[in-house]
Amino acid sequence: MSKIRLEATAIDLRFDESILEQVQQAHDYLHQNGGSAGHGFLGWIDPPAESGELAEELLGAAAYIRGKADVLLVIGIGGSYAGGRAGIEMLTHPFRNQLPPEQRNGPEIYFLGQNLSASYIKGLLSILEDRDVIVNVISKSGTTTETAIAFRIVLGWMHNKYGAKETARRIIATTDRSKGNLRRISEAGDYRTFDIPEDVAGRYSVLTPVGLLPMAVAGIDIQSMLRGARDARDQYSTCDLTQNICYQYAVARNKLLNQGKLIEILVSYEPGMALFAEWWKQLFGESEGKDGKGIFPASVQFTTDLHSIGQYVQQGPRHLFETILWVEDAHCNVELPELAGDPDELNYLAGKTLNFVNEQAFFGALQAHTEGDVPNLVLRIPRLDAQHVGHLFYFFEKACALSGYLLGVNPFDQPGVEMSKRNMFKLLGKSGSTL
Amino acid sequence: MSKIRLEATAIDLRFDESILEQVQQAHDYLHQNGGSAGHGFLGWIDPPAESGELAEELLGAAAYIRGKADVLLVIGIGGSYAGGRAGIEMLTHPFRNQLPPEQRNGPEIYFLGQNLSASYIKGLLSILEDRDVIVNVISKSGTTTETAIAFRIVLGWMHNKYGAKETARRIIATTDRSKGNLRRISEAGDYRTFDIPEDVAGRYSVLTPVGLLPMAVAGIDIQSMLRGARDARDQYSTCDLTQNICYQYAVARNKLLNQGKLIEILVSYEPGMALFAEWWKQLFGESEGKDGKGIFPASVQFTTDLHSIGQYVQQGPRHLFETILWVEDAHCNVELPELAGDPDELNYLAGKTLNFVNEQAFFGALQAHTEGDVPNLVLRIPRLDAQHVGHLFYFFEKACALSGYLLGVNPFDQPGVEMSKRNMFKLLGKSGSTL
Repeated sequence: MSKIRLEATAIDLRFDESILEQVQQAHDYLHQNGGSAGHGFLGWIDPPAESGELAEELLGAAAYIRGKADVLLVIGIGGSYAGGRAGIEMLTHPFRNQLPPEQRNGPEIYFLGQNLSASYIKGLLSILEDRDVIVNVISKSGTTTETAIAFRIVLGWMHNKYGAKETARRIIATTDRSKGNLRRISEAGDYRTFDIPEDVAGRYSVLTPVGLLPMAVAGIDIQSMLRGARDARDQYSTCDLTQNICYQYAVARNKLLNQGKLIEILVSYEPGMALFAEWWKQLFGESEGKDGKGIFPASVQFTTDLHSIGQYVQQGPRHLFETILWVEDAHCNVELPELAGDPDELNYLAGKTLNFVNEQAFFGALQAHTEGDVPNLVLRIPRLDAQHVGHLFYFFEKACALSGYLLGVNPFDQPGVEMSKRNMFKLLGKSGSTL
Repeated sequence: MSKIRLEATAIDLRFDESILEQVQQAHDYLHQNGGSAGHGFLGWIDPPAESGELAEELLGAAAYIRGKADVLLVIGIGGSYAGGRAGIEMLTHPFRNQLPPEQRNGPEIYFLGQNLSASYIKGLLSILEDRDVIVNVISKSGTTTETAIAFRIVLGWMHNKYGAKETARRIIATTDRSKGNLRRISEAGDYRTFDIPEDVAGRYSVLTPVGLLPMAVAGIDIQSMLRGARDARDQYSTCDLTQNICYQYAVARNKLLNQGKLIEILVSYEPGMALFAEWWKQLFGESEGKDGKGIFPASVQFTTDLHSIGQYVQQGPRHLFETILWVEDAHCNVELPELAGDPDELNYLAGKTLNFVNEQAFFGALQAHTEGDVPNLVLRIPRLDAQHVGHLFYFFEKACALSGYLLGVNPFDQPGVEMSKRNMFKLLGKSGSTL
């Protein structure tokens, strides 16, 4: 695997002594598993082995689903949603669900339970009427409202379609090993299950069965992905800041925050990375946004958004910086043809590729934004394959955990999310709920 | 049509004398069409008549496309992209392209030219191989790189598929009335064309043929949409701030900016509104983000993102406010069934609807965020139908123009977008380009 590299424009990546001490302390929190707030949530530090028992079981379940179903319906929200979907959208055909089965590599995959929209759930179920469906419901507790409601509705729909006995063979639950409603329901219903490790918070769970099972069903090589993640673990286990680009990224963004850069914009040049940006926004927003602290995580897709908030980036208030995900070797390409008479004045590009033009757009924007006083961090990703994506997931998880500790918050809790929920339960009339 | 209403929490909507004078001046800029920077770009102030010649021509072209094609391929970027797609996603089935033809109401509709991704363009064309395609290429100048490149590639693909003569009957160009490459190409190729008014900037062009033709092809009642927009024009033509909620919104957000609220988050509770948020981000980001000024426009989809950056909104730095698009009467609904034994503990919601639960989530988040010191503006939209969406497009266009003038910038130019482009052309080796 070629290495991911970190570059920076208009940012001094030299760091002074005081930050080195803080990095050492944060590093110790992560590796000595004690003493810090959130120390019970470090299970993600060691991703599953690529050829261990879990990987085998996941591949077995994926083969079962791929052999039996036209459609996998994944029900989950938050950390039980974004990562798996991000991996699938990055690594498979941009119109995967619309491909004919022989080109698709696995069943169609849809996501449900990530909102409370009646038109979405009704619309989705309407196109699945005559399809053969298997459900993967994902919830650590089983009490997350959106997931539980969607699952109840889907369960009724499946019973109508298949009857109770066959429905039970078509549900796979990913949940806590021993506790919670979904575990209890799964045991009563005799569903196949996968465990969400107790010591992994939702937003750090993409490399557990939460994300791995849907990705495996999509035909993604999850063993390569785990290999990439474990490479990243090894590569980023050193506290030597000169060697560890994951820590460099974490330290750089905290330095930028201290310089008044309040907003970080994650930039990609491939539309398939849009969901990865959503995963990243949850990871950082939920880990850091507390105690009145945290960088506001935003995202853009270039070049689409160069024609949109690109104007703001170039000339608005100077309180933002960009982190660019640049893929060096796009896995496919299109060459621009010559056109007689050159009516659109593009013949100067004839014989050039779309990737080449995309790259010049990237260079052009990088230079313009840097000159416009927007610092840029660039992550150069050799290829978008399962191994590099596994590496990337791990890179950002570890960077986020370190960054949270540098900021002085617990990167593994989410006390603010509870407030909206409590209000909602009160309004819904749930017994036992109080404001 | 029921009225759209504006409510606010934690924001004092009373305004002092000095702001009233500024509003009067900005209002005069917009209505007297002279004296201001950007005065040549006020064509959007009067939306086309619902039963005028243009509406008839658009309906005629839409009928032709609906009768002839399986697929409409729309090629455009920025203002020639986001609005039409937003309207279609808000007003049609969430999986419209995957519905069987008899349920779909018009051809499948895809968008191209809004990025430089080889895998996207190749992926899209691969699923269209055996479909009957008509193309709508949209560009005022015809020199926008993404659009021109996609159009050149598609033209070659169409020639292979249909030959030159039939291809010409399958291309409709939306472009400047008399100038530019695309106008010249259209005349040479004998394509049917629609005009983009000279006095409307891209991001204000959704209610011109740019947005209206794709929406009409999708079966959206564009005459109702224009009626809604013209209602909005009448309703927001008064300078009386107590009567004009469009101006109230513009003034409130400037007041919030002056109080240190640097980020505005547009919130919706329907996933179908995600593209509308992208349209809104371009409108405000490109209109206001200049001269070191402007509110950073961000967006979230709740309840999805209550489980993501909801944490940051609740407890991060207090430099943000929310503008919520709340749809009062969702056009479809799902009732929650009773489940024997109540294994998921949701029977307290049996007989309640998904919309009811979504509404309590909205109330719960509104209250929690307000208590968390995040000011909230709420736009209550009676229904998501063509008429109300037309009203909404106009509401935000006029609010944005007024807001830009209040901020002291020209809301109709985009000088910063040119810088990235110039760099790119230089790097691409385009003759005549200089840095």
